[in-house]
Amino acid sequence: MELAKVNIEELEALLRQAGELFQDREAAGCVKIKGEADYVTEVDYRVQQFIRRRLEADYPQVQFLSEEKTNQEIDKSGLVWILDPVDGTTNLIHDCHASCISLALMERSEVVLGFVYNPYSEELFMAQKGRGCRLNGKSTAVSRAARMEDSLIAIGTSPYYKETADKNFDIFKRLFMDCQDIRRSGSAAMDLAYVACGRLDGYFERNLKIWDVAAGMLLVREAGGSVLSFNGAQAGNDMVSDIAAGNSVIAGLLTEEYL
Amino acid sequence: MELAKVNIEELEALLRQAGELFQDREAAGCVKIKGEADYVTEVDYRVQQFIRRRLEADYPQVQFLSEEKTNQEIDKSGLVWILDPVDGTTNLIHDCHASCISLALMERSEVVLGFVYNPYSEELFMAQKGRGCRLNGKSTAVSRAARMEDSLIAIGTSPYYKETADKNFDIFKRLFMDCQDIRRSGSAAMDLAYVACGRLDGYFERNLKIWDVAAGMLLVREAGGSVLSFNGAQAGNDMVSDIAAGNSVIAGLLTEEYL
Repeated sequence: MELAKVNIEELEALLRQAGELFQDREAAGCVKIKGEADYVTEVDYRVQQFIRRRLEADYPQVQFLSEEKTNQEIDKSGLVWILDPVDGTTNLIHDCHASCISLALMERSEVVLGFVYNPYSEELFMAQKGRGCRLNGKSTAVSRAARMEDSLIAIGTSPYYKETADKNFDIFKRLFMDCQDIRRSGSAAMDLAYVACGRLDGYFERNLKIWDVAAGMLLVREAGGSVLSFNGAQAGNDMVSDIAAGNSVIAGLLTEEYL
Repeated sequence: MELAKVNIEELEALLRQAGELFQDREAAGCVKIKGEADYVTEVDYRVQQFIRRRLEADYPQVQFLSEEKTNQEIDKSGLVWILDPVDGTTNLIHDCHASCISLALMERSEVVLGFVYNPYSEELFMAQKGRGCRLNGKSTAVSRAARMEDSLIAIGTSPYYKETADKNFDIFKRLFMDCQDIRRSGSAAMDLAYVACGRLDGYFERNLKIWDVAAGMLLVREAGGSVLSFNGAQAGNDMVSDIAAGNSVIAGLLTEEYL
């Protein structure tokens, strides 16, 4: 399948429809504990099922990788949908209005299409490889901040890995002293989308899963920004990774001087 | 003037109109530096002027206290409007969609009416002393969380007072280890409003000015919650204060065990 054969408008409509499922407070209150501070709700299952059913019907040749199921062996040489039905599940449980759907399409191990949809703000971010990033149809770019002191930086606390807190909070404080301020939303996909439209100048977090970041990383890169591993190399599509995103100056400063 | 003589609906409409001024990206980019990481924009001035003009015309007997002007001697035995035209100015500058208008009415040193309006989500929080808290007309309540491990806590970084960072980040880390996760929005008024509708279980910050919190404190209390000083006493209406808010259990835990 070539990328051109994907119907972007239909996919966007599908995500907007799926986002309506976020409103069901009863389903959001139906919570299963996966691990330390790690939850899944009935909304996660419903959004996943709603989207998956349609994708499998419309794109039967595309495999399906997602947070909310046991993933069989995926053949990475083919096409793979990567879905996080609710990124920011803790926010959803608290009705905290900062969660989104993240959907990416990977072709021969490269992400070629990414969507992040926030049902609260009705903002849909979309990027196609080589064609830029759009927010509700309008082209976006990363910020032009060139100094940490002009920057607003989203921190990732890795709440499922509290053993990393000592390291992380040292970094948060050092960074806070140098930047305008820090932000913490609780949704990796939303933080990456905000970097991709210049609202945030940078974002970093450890131990992110591929479904948290596959779409958002493409958004940032197509908006002219960089997504790096903590060691400064280009971030890949590993199942778990530590990433820093921003325009190339800020992403570089983060990895070189703080991480 | 008795409180009954204030026209709540007209005031709400005024705030919604004023919120449209947040959309002017050119005015938001017109920035004056007040202090360390402390800014004021043309939007702040315009929102203030728009609201003030109407309040002075409709309520000539009420004094006016606000962030964006030199306050003359205020007679606290009378009636005073307390306005923060843009709470979350750094977010506004970055177009980060997390700023709001905060307006309170103080009568003989007691806040009797409070509004927090978020123009991005079009959410208007309103509380009248003794009559509860409402979000877009619907009654709200603080969360019922009884343990820190079930709680989502908004931290205040006091970005204009970076000398408090050592103390603060120690607290943030200790709290993070015990709660579900921390959040940082950059708007005190919005954090208090979110506590008042149960989206956040708690919030605390040092060095808050009265215009940041006058309305939000009433929202929390009218939603059944507590707003305490860091020493555990009821927070007053000082020009500057350190406060912890939440339901009474969580606000108590914050002040007793973390602050």
